[in-house]
Amino acid sequence: MIVVLKPNISKKDEMAVLKEIKKLGYKPHVMRGVERTVVGAIGDERTHSTLETLAAWPQVESVMPVQKRFKLVSREAHKGNSTISIKVGSNTIVVGGKKVQVMAGPCSVESEKQLLTTAHSVKAAGATILRGGAFKPRTSPYEFQGLGEKGLKMLAKARKETGLAIITELLSEEHAEMVAGYADILQIGARNAQNFQLLIAAAKTGKPVLLKRGLSMKIEEWLLAGEYILANENSNLMFCERGIRTFETYTRNTLDLSTVPIIKKESHCPIVIDPSQGAGRSDLVVAMCKGAVAMGADALLIEVHPNPAEAWSDGAQQVTLEGFAKLMEELKPFIAAAGRE
Amino acid sequence: MIVVLKPNISKKDEMAVLKEIKKLGYKPHVMRGVERTVVGAIGDERTHSTLETLAAWPQVESVMPVQKRFKLVSREAHKGNSTISIKVGSNTIVVGGKKVQVMAGPCSVESEKQLLTTAHSVKAAGATILRGGAFKPRTSPYEFQGLGEKGLKMLAKARKETGLAIITELLSEEHAEMVAGYADILQIGARNAQNFQLLIAAAKTGKPVLLKRGLSMKIEEWLLAGEYILANENSNLMFCERGIRTFETYTRNTLDLSTVPIIKKESHCPIVIDPSQGAGRSDLVVAMCKGAVAMGADALLIEVHPNPAEAWSDGAQQVTLEGFAKLMEELKPFIAAAGRE
Amino acid sequence: MIVVLKPNISKKDEMAVLKEIKKLGYKPHVMRGVERTVVGAIGDERTHSTLETLAAWPQVESVMPVQKRFKLVSREAHKGNSTISIKVGSNTIVVGGKKVQVMAGPCSVESEKQLLTTAHSVKAAGATILRGGAFKPRTSPYEFQGLGEKGLKMLAKARKETGLAIITELLSEEHAEMVAGYADILQIGARNAQNFQLLIAAAKTGKPVLLKRGLSMKIEEWLLAGEYILANENSNLMFCERGIRTFETYTRNTLDLSTVPIIKKESHCPIVIDPSQGAGRSDLVVAMCKGAVAMGADALLIEVHPNPAEAWSDGAQQVTLEGFAKLMEELKPFIAAAGRE
Amino acid sequence: MIVVLKPNISKKDEMAVLKEIKKLGYKPHVMRGVERTVVGAIGDERTHSTLETLAAWPQVESVMPVQKRFKLVSREAHKGNSTISIKVGSNTIVVGGKKVQVMAGPCSVESEKQLLTTAHSVKAAGATILRGGAFKPRTSPYEFQGLGEKGLKMLAKARKETGLAIITELLSEEHAEMVAGYADILQIGARNAQNFQLLIAAAKTGKPVLLKRGLSMKIEEWLLAGEYILANENSNLMFCERGIRTFETYTRNTLDLSTVPIIKKESHCPIVIDPSQGAGRSDLVVAMCKGAVAMGADALLIEVHPNPAEAWSDGAQQVTLEGFAKLMEELKPFIAAAGRE
Repeated sequence: MIVVLKPNISKKDEMAVLKEIKKLGYKPHVMRGVERTVVGAIGDERTHSTLETLAAWPQVESVMPVQKRFKLVSREAHKGNSTISIKVGSNTIVVGGKKVQVMAGPCSVESEKQLLTTAHSVKAAGATILRGGAFKPRTSPYEFQGLGEKGLKMLAKARKETGLAIITELLSEEHAEMVAGYADILQIGARNAQNFQLLIAAAKTGKPVLLKRGLSMKIEEWLLAGEYILANENSNLMFCERGIRTFETYTRNTLDLSTVPIIKKESHCPIVIDPSQGAGRSDLVVAMCKGAVAMGADALLIEVHPNPAEAWSDGAQQVTLEGFAKLMEELKPFIAAAGRE
Repeated sequence: MIVVLKPNISKKDEMAVLKEIKKLGYKPHVMRGVERTVVGAIGDERTHSTLETLAAWPQVESVMPVQKRFKLVSREAHKGNSTISIKVGSNTIVVGGKKVQVMAGPCSVESEKQLLTTAHSVKAAGATILRGGAFKPRTSPYEFQGLGEKGLKMLAKARKETGLAIITELLSEEHAEMVAGYADILQIGARNAQNFQLLIAAAKTGKPVLLKRGLSMKIEEWLLAGEYILANENSNLMFCERGIRTFETYTRNTLDLSTVPIIKKESHCPIVIDPSQGAGRSDLVVAMCKGAVAMGADALLIEVHPNPAEAWSDGAQQVTLEGFAKLMEELKPFIAAAGRE
Repeated sequence: MIVVLKPNISKKDEMAVLKEIKKLGYKPHVMRGVERTVVGAIGDERTHSTLETLAAWPQVESVMPVQKRFKLVSREAHKGNSTISIKVGSNTIVVGGKKVQVMAGPCSVESEKQLLTTAHSVKAAGATILRGGAFKPRTSPYEFQGLGEKGLKMLAKARKETGLAIITELLSEEHAEMVAGYADILQIGARNAQNFQLLIAAAKTGKPVLLKRGLSMKIEEWLLAGEYILANENSNLMFCERGIRTFETYTRNTLDLSTVPIIKKESHCPIVIDPSQGAGRSDLVVAMCKGAVAMGADALLIEVHPNPAEAWSDGAQQVTLEGFAKLMEELKPFIAAAGRE
Repeated sequence: MIVVLKPNISKKDEMAVLKEIKKLGYKPHVMRGVERTVVGAIGDERTHSTLETLAAWPQVESVMPVQKRFKLVSREAHKGNSTISIKVGSNTIVVGGKKVQVMAGPCSVESEKQLLTTAHSVKAAGATILRGGAFKPRTSPYEFQGLGEKGLKMLAKARKETGLAIITELLSEEHAEMVAGYADILQIGARNAQNFQLLIAAAKTGKPVLLKRGLSMKIEEWLLAGEYILANENSNLMFCERGIRTFETYTRNTLDLSTVPIIKKESHCPIVIDPSQGAGRSDLVVAMCKGAVAMGADALLIEVHPNPAEAWSDGAQQVTLEGFAKLMEELKPFIAAAGRE
């Protein structure tokens, strides 16, 4: 850590800072500049206590960490790209490999018919993973909260019929075992991205975890939330960008596609893009998928509904079955251009 | 709801919209403007399905709700100010009444000595409620996560010794009963403000709930999260502003003091201000407390530590025991100016 | 416009609203809902006074516009895509046509050698337009402010030598004629995006204008700023996304690539992407260019410097001459996939 | 500056960094940590070139400045509080002294009658400075752009009749002399807060300048924009917070009252609060004024209109004459509590 001292402080005040740095196990190193004295505190910042409390001292101007705080998710920890293998029957779906995987399905599971129609259709168009919410986090307590375990059973049936793997949201620690009993991938939603107890519960099921970025989560916070998964002995983590909250109101969120190269640079875990939540408008989904694929995304998560206008949640952002098939067709040249399959 | 149609659409497309509006139980009402046709959908928006899915239709330009979605927390539902009474021994502490209550104490409970020293000191300075975290949500899995139930026992001891009521954070559904067994008020932290399962679990304990605003939560979302408490039959809700996330980096968060008059206007529930989290810097806490009190806050939540520089979490934002006593003294004329006690 | 009245207001208060609506030239249309009365005000919102002042009335809950406020830049005004033709010698460069144009060059013009070296190199790699700042808006008055007219002369020389068109920033009304005397395209920077006097001065030169999006500019505000150009009789406008300011600090700005399909949908004007400002880090530029091209951008604006580490401004975001040549090569398959040249 | 090197780089790469640091006039100082090597670059950062370009080097992880970049506006440069004296006839109005000054008046000057009515009324209620826009920056080219010099003449007449000082917005370099001929204080609006040419032109008139914070301006950027005024030999600068742009849509902007203690801490210049722009809603103005005064604001800037519902601009945020008189009465106990007049 770097501790910047205020100008013109007494020798005694400076000594107190050095003493505190030593007490916390770092070795202080003083540099006298023209306008400021700067103290380097030498030691591993991830295993020692933080020095940021020094910022509360009157003689200290600022404290700056020099190390990144994430370890297991970092590219330094694992030079190659991690891949996640999901077995469905005799098939293996690999996320993070050469093939760009597409996860598609309705925002909410509404009925067996709705789900199976969608599943067969997205499978035919080339999707390999079926998404569908059985437990829905809703802004208002008066909105549809999902079909619960009944919805999970429908997802299991769809997997059996189609061979698609299943991804669905986990939103309560108490459901972790139950949801893991049906799903191939557990999704942690944006609103729970720093619900650390839920992250730990998800990790402990052993199932692959897709961690959405929180609405106002900085990259480092997102990586550290992912660290909760790996530190709980589950190495099957993928990050999913779904848009951040900004001042813009034209779109529901601002999809931050720069996360694709950034996650690739900082971490070995796969990166998935969710353009449906990102835009909140189905008319922007196609362009965003093209951009995501061109920039190197490992997978896409797309909301598809047989009749978006009658969806029980988030209708405006779901594409139709036909729209999805067309989208898959249009993506092909971009997938090829990116050297993927 | 108001449905704005695109210009120059066919009669058939318009009819389809009207039919859908009727199907969802609203009565359509067409207004032909100069450039746009607008359809009013008449019916109670809180009990009918939303029409927002219509925005997915190609012939629709936009859909705008006209009603607010929160009910029980709204000022319309309860004209007077709600008050929350907390009994400690033979005393009753009222939040939302004439007296501005001060909740003070360390960010984390670290030891019995640290907690009791602080408790006696803040009590002497005029605080009536003791804060202290036993379970801590931390950005990194490698940071101190709180003393757990051991910390709760220390809080209970401090209450017994001082007569202060206890507020502490709940961060897992699975702890709800345990934490409620020790605490007088359950705090829901900013990162869990839309962890709806936790909100429901907190509500069901019957204990008063202090709901912090999420880092990027709009006023309406915050009120709706509060609605989860009241809709689960717990009327003892208070809102707590603790700063939102913006582009500014000088302060850790941007404390939005306009929430004081806004919550007073929209809701009957008390509003609490947390300047410690808001600024993340103890040197701004005094000014923010003055502003909060002048604007009509019902209570303050202030982090106080015997030795902030050695705090196990968030040292930079905690004030000293002496600093707190001085602050309480300085607030007096502003409390009087606001017609409070 | 739609005017939502508060519940339970008197007949007299309602009548006053209707009277005011009529006075401003609209025709009121009352809809009585279950919980709210809503008044539609029928008339062209772009030629009548706004009714938003009604929101100040105690009996009014909210006022919502139903029309968009931009006209000349809108897709409704001009169904096809506008193109901008720039003549350099006997060549014509078309922005907004089939060919994706690349504008490249240093952040600041520093010397003839620096500029000419860059110009020849980017031309060889396929760029058609040379960028370079002669007048630089700098956060601090103590930073390098640009070479001024001397820099413009160097740009003119580079055009003569290479046949590249010139784009450079205009940041003072008083320089409009002078800068237009040297440049083929006038760039309006993000900090001046709502400096309306500068927009008018730029428009009046008759030169094509590239309008960057302001750091916290909503899409509608950006389109309306563009409207200032067209309304001042200059139809050669292109929009340029260069990243918006958000809470994220990993990148300097958050590049909002969704602007590509949004501008294409709302406007007929070309859309340019500036990934250098967007990321503020040269290591993310390649991925962002791929994304921009895949999503349909008409042009790219890229900072290139022979020796970024010694640049007089914004070194961290400039790519090297070799990096640029490699980037142009890597973009080819994506340009082809997008059906462009 | 502090330069953090990447782990495991070659000796040669490290030497290149040290050489570059020396070349730019700093003295390098190497600290070898456990995981990272850090180089302190010793020298005055405000007079040497920035080292931030080093961040573009592959062997460099990050570059962190240790000095603040503003000088003349800083509290270090001038320990006491600066005051600004404005003479109107035989009176002197001091901003930044013991008396909290109130600047009040309409958003736009609309007519002599509107202005004089307002001026007499706000004077009677205790205001000492009259605000009113003659040149208006408007989001759309089709909105009312102000009366121009005709409006300035009306302001001059109001000053003569009432003895109020005049503050009005300057939005074009070309108007600087003209506007300075009528006004006592030049206002630089939020959209022009980084229009550096305008700042220089304003400074050179010698008139006091009120610099509004830009919509997404960081504190340091704001202070540096103020530095442009002082560096151009005009020491009569006051900062004005008017709300920043955030994700919240309930209010037009988020008024950041923490700027009051922050500006007081970092700078010697007065701080003014504009609650009208800050909230965009007149019903929140009273509470915000109370908060601002309690926190130590030197002046308030309040929009007042005889008939807000018929205002030609921003009606929703202007208070009535009666509302203003009542507000001034309600502020008295808070001004007294703050030890001001």
